[in-house]
Amino acid sequence: MQLNKFTDIGLRVLMYLSQSRFDQQVTIDEIATTFDLPRNHLIKVITRLNKLGWIKATRGRNGGLELNPESLQLRIGDILRELENTTELINCEKPMCRFHGDCLLKGALQTGLESFYAHMNQHRLFDIVNHNTREKIISMHKTHAA
Amino acid sequence: MQLNKFTDIGLRVLMYLSQSRFDQQVTIDEIATTFDLPRNHLIKVITRLNKLGWIKATRGRNGGLELNPESLQLRIGDILRELENTTELINCEKPMCRFHGDCLLKGALQTGLESFYAHMNQHRLFDIVNHNTREKIISMHKTHAA
Repeated sequence: MQLNKFTDIGLRVLMYLSQSRFDQQVTIDEIATTFDLPRNHLIKVITRLNKLGWIKATRGRNGGLELNPESLQLRIGDILRELENTTELINCEKPMCRFHGDCLLKGALQTGLESFYAHMNQHRLFDIVNHNTREKIISMHKTHAA
Repeated sequence: MQLNKFTDIGLRVLMYLSQSRFDQQVTIDEIATTFDLPRNHLIKVITRLNKLGWIKATRGRNGGLELNPESLQLRIGDILRELENTTELINCEKPMCRFHGDCLLKGALQTGLESFYAHMNQHRLFDIVNHNTREKIISMHKTHAA
């Protein structure tokens, strides 16, 4: 059981942008190089994060990526739930399971997953960034807001 | 995020054997056909379940598989923890993540996973088998023990 690659990349992008200076644009190539990620995978994730309004992608010569400052308040459980494209921990339909419709496991797994998300919602994006870096972010944030 | 195929198959085998008559041996081919599973995958899982003592595999003409009756008391969280070969929800080392050793996400995911297993441990193998079938199992179990 592991997070989907899509979610994994999404978290790294959000964390990377959280730690970047708010007045500095980050490029896709910079992230791809930093995390050794295939550019095409990364672009799909960035498109999604941009659609969600969690990051801002600006085209053009001085363009690049930056975090929407409000995203620092995102709860990790909500991020995971949004980015994971599987909502079930087990696939009972492909191939159709003999126990389908007559099994209490799926419901138990579903409430277990909810318990996981609820636990993860105790943490915000702001919290999981390293403390020292976070101090920097706070002071930059203040400067940015001033 | 989904359970590994190995765990998925393991749960189905345990549930199938839970619902089978205790005096009737089940064959590998029967399970492979019932769940449309590749025989070689299935054999790996069965070897593991046998080593764990959760099932009994008997070779020979009248051989086959049966559940160790004590396995009905296995807690689902413990089953998942034993069969999942990944202990971490995210891989921070391949490739090595820029945040490695300086990131609070991994710890948060780990405690989230513990919360999931603890939740799943509220259910036993005995509980997730369909109630009607379970009634049958109980009476069979009594007959078997008599």
